[in-house]
Amino acid sequence: MSEDATAIDLRDPASFPYWSRDNIRFSDLDRVGHVNNVAFAVYAETGRVEMLETLYPGSTAGSGVGWVIVRLVVEFVGQAHYPGRVDIGTRVSRLGNSSCTLVQGLFDGTRCIGTSEAVCVWCDTRSGSALPLPDDLRTILAGYTGPTPPAAT
Amino acid sequence: MSEDATAIDLRDPASFPYWSRDNIRFSDLDRVGHVNNVAFAVYAETGRVEMLETLYPGSTAGSGVGWVIVRLVVEFVGQAHYPGRVDIGTRVSRLGNSSCTLVQGLFDGTRCIGTSEAVCVWCDTRSGSALPLPDDLRTILAGYTGPTPPAAT
Amino acid sequence: MSEDATAIDLRDPASFPYWSRDNIRFSDLDRVGHVNNVAFAVYAETGRVEMLETLYPGSTAGSGVGWVIVRLVVEFVGQAHYPGRVDIGTRVSRLGNSSCTLVQGLFDGTRCIGTSEAVCVWCDTRSGSALPLPDDLRTILAGYTGPTPPAAT
Amino acid sequence: MSEDATAIDLRDPASFPYWSRDNIRFSDLDRVGHVNNVAFAVYAETGRVEMLETLYPGSTAGSGVGWVIVRLVVEFVGQAHYPGRVDIGTRVSRLGNSSCTLVQGLFDGTRCIGTSEAVCVWCDTRSGSALPLPDDLRTILAGYTGPTPPAAT
Repeated sequence: MSEDATAIDLRDPASFPYWSRDNIRFSDLDRVGHVNNVAFAVYAETGRVEMLETLYPGSTAGSGVGWVIVRLVVEFVGQAHYPGRVDIGTRVSRLGNSSCTLVQGLFDGTRCIGTSEAVCVWCDTRSGSALPLPDDLRTILAGYTGPTPPAAT
Repeated sequence: MSEDATAIDLRDPASFPYWSRDNIRFSDLDRVGHVNNVAFAVYAETGRVEMLETLYPGSTAGSGVGWVIVRLVVEFVGQAHYPGRVDIGTRVSRLGNSSCTLVQGLFDGTRCIGTSEAVCVWCDTRSGSALPLPDDLRTILAGYTGPTPPAAT
Repeated sequence: MSEDATAIDLRDPASFPYWSRDNIRFSDLDRVGHVNNVAFAVYAETGRVEMLETLYPGSTAGSGVGWVIVRLVVEFVGQAHYPGRVDIGTRVSRLGNSSCTLVQGLFDGTRCIGTSEAVCVWCDTRSGSALPLPDDLRTILAGYTGPTPPAAT
Repeated sequence: MSEDATAIDLRDPASFPYWSRDNIRFSDLDRVGHVNNVAFAVYAETGRVEMLETLYPGSTAGSGVGWVIVRLVVEFVGQAHYPGRVDIGTRVSRLGNSSCTLVQGLFDGTRCIGTSEAVCVWCDTRSGSALPLPDDLRTILAGYTGPTPPAAT
């Protein structure tokens, strides 16, 4: 994890202002009998895309301008089993000129099963060139850099 | 990437002693029209499990004693498109008492589309406790810490 | 669909006694921008395994004796989009000596997006040989051959 | 299977004029330790999309006019194991005004592990309305209704 991410306790549900939920699917299991490591990356994507798309609709559609992921880190903290659900907490850990780092905790109830860090860049999705974050998007994301969501106004 | 991994140029095919290949599947694509980030984690798994299982049969079966992944890093270097194939180079970057770090380059021909680092721990897969690497396994893995595979003996 | 299945209106939510729910994941989408056909097979599995496992715990674990699927039919009735949820209704359409046919409707709210039929055989999962359905299992499944679940007793 | 499909022995590799290959991935396995049923639907898609896209480029891109699958049948004939490859034979079993039925055999070497039937409709992919098959596409597909590919001209 990057410097800024390590200051946040990603194994504590209290660290996260935004929450998503995913089903553990039978097809997420592997021959070891538990949830395969790749499914953790899927759960992280579920939370990441839901937050980014909800806060700024259209930003994950891949048409014209939007988010592109450039780096993903997943730490496998505990096993996950079927059947079950995964609660995914997400928080902005860093805002750059054209990028945003999201950190996540994956939980089975209050038990942390994994953590994640994703660096996303605001791009012209056709050329792949980075673009400055729009001001309104930056303001919205800044509301999710702490453990609690921004108060409704 | 960890300190030891960054010393290896993961974007250069010449860095890797072990090679695997995977198909880009139509179902790997997302609505952006390119290969989804999760599929990169799958390609990394394809190479990682093939190498670990081939060098030490049974070590990824999840029965009794074997490898458990505890950390995965994927860097998304370039887009991947359908149809196509992915060539996956894998190399041991670090051997610990009970763990092994594998680094990888994902290539479309000679064009690097991604890199990966995975920390794997030798465990009692039921209890999850780490165990010392068996001597013969350590010797085998040590043969893949450089850019060329060990000479046949 | 088999003769017995076609007598049931699989596009009507009122036909089903057992209900499951799955998330539409971003990774279920394809480059057409809608949910890929393979994901419909996953949603059908979600409902099928949940019902079989809930009604008879251990029957989908693949250890010793349990269900093996031998035939799957999926009809794609409408498109499914992200984000969203899929409600999956499941019903037993036929009980044989060693097999069971499940029919399903997949719904976005009350809009049917797909239907499914799965023939499952009770097997020695190691040899693959069919076995007679246990009497208690047959009795349980018989409770789900109509549109309403069995009354609690 | 439909009437016309059953006349073709889908378990015989000699029945198919078009061949594709897919890797069995570690992530295709389920907790039973063999390839999950959903992966069979993926292998069928691999062969189907490859054939349709190769014979008529752009026809699976989902942009404007192209193929939409409306029905999929998979028969699970035998178990598939990791590691391995799947050879997928595909043949046109029926050509309608605006639709095409493809039948497939999935093979581990010469051992049939599954068969498939897919009904695909030529559509305006935005409205979902069926369109007549273009004449040149019909001519191309007619070359794959028998067990051998059309002779190069």
